[in-house]
Amino acid sequence: MILAPSILAADIARLEAHARAAVDAGTKWLHIDVMDGHFVPVITFGPHVVEALQPLRAEGVVLDVHLMVEQPERHLEAFARAGASIATVHVEACPHLHRTVELIKDLGMQAGVTLNPATPLVMLEEILPDVDLVLIMSVNPGAGGQAFIPQSTSKIRRARRMLNAIGSHAYLEVDGGIKPDNVAEVVAAGANVIVAGSAVFDERERSVAENIEAFRQALYLQA
Amino acid sequence: MILAPSILAADIARLEAHARAAVDAGTKWLHIDVMDGHFVPVITFGPHVVEALQPLRAEGVVLDVHLMVEQPERHLEAFARAGASIATVHVEACPHLHRTVELIKDLGMQAGVTLNPATPLVMLEEILPDVDLVLIMSVNPGAGGQAFIPQSTSKIRRARRMLNAIGSHAYLEVDGGIKPDNVAEVVAAGANVIVAGSAVFDERERSVAENIEAFRQALYLQA
Repeated sequence: MILAPSILAADIARLEAHARAAVDAGTKWLHIDVMDGHFVPVITFGPHVVEALQPLRAEGVVLDVHLMVEQPERHLEAFARAGASIATVHVEACPHLHRTVELIKDLGMQAGVTLNPATPLVMLEEILPDVDLVLIMSVNPGAGGQAFIPQSTSKIRRARRMLNAIGSHAYLEVDGGIKPDNVAEVVAAGANVIVAGSAVFDERERSVAENIEAFRQALYLQA
Repeated sequence: MILAPSILAADIARLEAHARAAVDAGTKWLHIDVMDGHFVPVITFGPHVVEALQPLRAEGVVLDVHLMVEQPERHLEAFARAGASIATVHVEACPHLHRTVELIKDLGMQAGVTLNPATPLVMLEEILPDVDLVLIMSVNPGAGGQAFIPQSTSKIRRARRMLNAIGSHAYLEVDGGIKPDNVAEVVAAGANVIVAGSAVFDERERSVAENIEAFRQALYLQA
């Protein structure tokens, strides 16, 4: 299981230090929630935040960029230049999804596709052999701190079956409302990359390292 | 003359520290360039960067937010909640500019309006009595590090005349390509708020404090 802390929940005023706290605690991925204020209501940040994290990528950290933007194809080159490892686009934002996925790979990134909670898995049917990552949104994208939508567990299980059926080794990532008390459920359903924001970076009760350790403990208990 | 360093040119990985270096050197304003990847090609950052700068606002720093976004009215409440002091909108993005300016003020912020380089000053004719700030773009918005468009000096001079003619005390701000070697020219033309990005935050040759001092020296020499 890969934990991908979402820097949207980190302290943007001291981003490098806060992100590094997660990496020092053993995190191999960082998840970067890009929002344009159009595909979703809020504007978060763009390529220069990815660029700011290059010292961590140089140490081997995977920069996992989730593009909650309209016409993501207009932004892919900027994210590739900024040093994104993975670019994930929404099927709802991509009428030419195959072309967009090819562009991501041509630019030297791994290609992810993602679905809003109400978008059915059948939308992945044709593109699945071409992707490196499938992201199941377990909340509606656009804000941190939302509650896990329960039927997401079944959606993860069905996505896992689709990937296995074609022999795909693509990552199956889940994002939204995952905490130590429900992470075992989504991992058992077949997810192998877990995005967590406030559950990692909120330090009001525990440090970042302790928050990450709580996820590990939750999975040991299940195993 | 007020210098408003643009945090777009600051190191986003250590934003608070870099912004504080400018404040410690005497800066009273910080300029925040919000881009949505639609009105301009690039996505920069949104309200949570304004929120991250609240410790500086609490010390009296003015957070001067320039919204290079389509439909800025959809984002104004988020920026007010995040703690923006001033919100400046593009006349090109606001078919209902008077309504948008009223909304900014109703939300407790000061209202600015701005024009792209090719947009004529006559577009301000009706709205001028209602605004707290006029921003003259002396480069095309959307990226840092561009060269000052020479005819901007005449545009500033004419904007100053328009403000004086109605007895307005609105700030006259200029943004784009301003360096110590041309700041005296735009101040002489009537600008009293100067946005500078890389000329302040680029520390390859001089520190932030030395960069700010260079602007001060340039104005002393003129006076």
